[in-house]
Amino acid sequence: MRLALLQCPSHPLDVPGNLQRLHASAVQAAAGGACLLVCPEMFLSGYAIGVDEVRRLAEYPDGASYQQVAAIAQSTGVAIVYGYPELDNDGSLYNSVQCVDSTGTSLGNYRKIHLYGELDNQQFNRSAQLPTLFDFAGWKVGMLICYDIEFPESARYLASLGADLILVPTANMEPYRFVPHSVVPCRAYENQVYVAYANYCGAEHQLTYCGLSSIVSPAGVALDMAGSEQRLLFADLDPQALAQSRLGFPFLADRRSDLF
Amino acid sequence: MRLALLQCPSHPLDVPGNLQRLHASAVQAAAGGACLLVCPEMFLSGYAIGVDEVRRLAEYPDGASYQQVAAIAQSTGVAIVYGYPELDNDGSLYNSVQCVDSTGTSLGNYRKIHLYGELDNQQFNRSAQLPTLFDFAGWKVGMLICYDIEFPESARYLASLGADLILVPTANMEPYRFVPHSVVPCRAYENQVYVAYANYCGAEHQLTYCGLSSIVSPAGVALDMAGSEQRLLFADLDPQALAQSRLGFPFLADRRSDLF
Repeated sequence: MRLALLQCPSHPLDVPGNLQRLHASAVQAAAGGACLLVCPEMFLSGYAIGVDEVRRLAEYPDGASYQQVAAIAQSTGVAIVYGYPELDNDGSLYNSVQCVDSTGTSLGNYRKIHLYGELDNQQFNRSAQLPTLFDFAGWKVGMLICYDIEFPESARYLASLGADLILVPTANMEPYRFVPHSVVPCRAYENQVYVAYANYCGAEHQLTYCGLSSIVSPAGVALDMAGSEQRLLFADLDPQALAQSRLGFPFLADRRSDLF
Repeated sequence: MRLALLQCPSHPLDVPGNLQRLHASAVQAAAGGACLLVCPEMFLSGYAIGVDEVRRLAEYPDGASYQQVAAIAQSTGVAIVYGYPELDNDGSLYNSVQCVDSTGTSLGNYRKIHLYGELDNQQFNRSAQLPTLFDFAGWKVGMLICYDIEFPESARYLASLGADLILVPTANMEPYRFVPHSVVPCRAYENQVYVAYANYCGAEHQLTYCGLSSIVSPAGVALDMAGSEQRLLFADLDPQALAQSRLGFPFLADRRSDLF
């Protein structure tokens, strides 16, 4: 399975423009042979936009932007994972990601569990829904968002459910390069899963994003890793390589669930 | 607090010779200003010695070798963490580490929880005792052994007890360089603790050890890291730097113990 990641600058508050960028990227991903495209955190609206703009731009998971993303997925044949501000029926606001397949069907919607500092806490409610897996092209796939991956519990939980691949839209800023360089590879290794980490590059207000998006193998090796440039990353995920790696690193079997 | 780590080849089956090496290293650590010296896994006996030799050389935690280690600690003024094969009253054998302070008192004894492959499983019983902390020079200290550190649960558990410093005697062999390069720094970072990882260099039977012993700060930065050479590593641990780092990385406060 060929995976594509979009690393790009954030274009805050420009939902129509971001949907256009998404369409162009999905066309490019399809031309590159990918069947799944992962975009950064809060891609549709921008990330550090303030709670008033979050509320103004928030949508239900099946709202107008979803309909447009579904149309893009259908027209390009590429499934899409995108971040957006989610409005709940009770008025709550969540930092969410959704996966829409090439038939336009939502395969999963995830609300960020670990909120990062004032920025997240002022803009969003803190989700208490555990992440779940969905099936995609024979793979068991989980989604996390940014700060979530820095907590070993999140990826471990998905691995314990049987995850093969964890998709992590992110908005990771300077100086936190340790996360893409060390934490993301460690999560892949310790859980024997592929991890795809899709970040912004460039600046948004006072934030400078790290770039360094990556697709990491269960050996902890980056199959592709960006610098600070805008581009699409590609990697081929291999179920046989995953199975082989798990034979050599039986962490899930060897962990002491009886004690911890 | 200045910490010293001994990276050296394994000298299998030579307990008297290893006690001599320990004495010389403690003298050197004291001369370098260290108050604590950490040696590799199963330092007294060697690691891959087979179950018959493990049984022959196994000792109670207060056995003859302990008495000699205590005398070394007392004469040099340096506390010592050393690995050894432990005999339990019921005849069980454990892969253990013990910390003896400069008064000759045992501060803690830990039995390896995560056994590595056939090598560990043939030689040792699997401990079901959770690790604990001890106080040393104002620091809360925990101990793990080798494979334990590859499981995020172990270090997280010690951090949840309040650990400031985790000491990890190890016998990490080729090709597992990912562990010292990525996993050990990640454990320090994600738990906001210092981690000291004391490995062998050189060969033991068919094993070639990685070296790459390190003392890592809570920022995930190696304060000292060895190559493949035999030497003593030193690092100064700073309680103010630790407190400062924790302000910037409040992982323990932000983790979702309500969910995971």
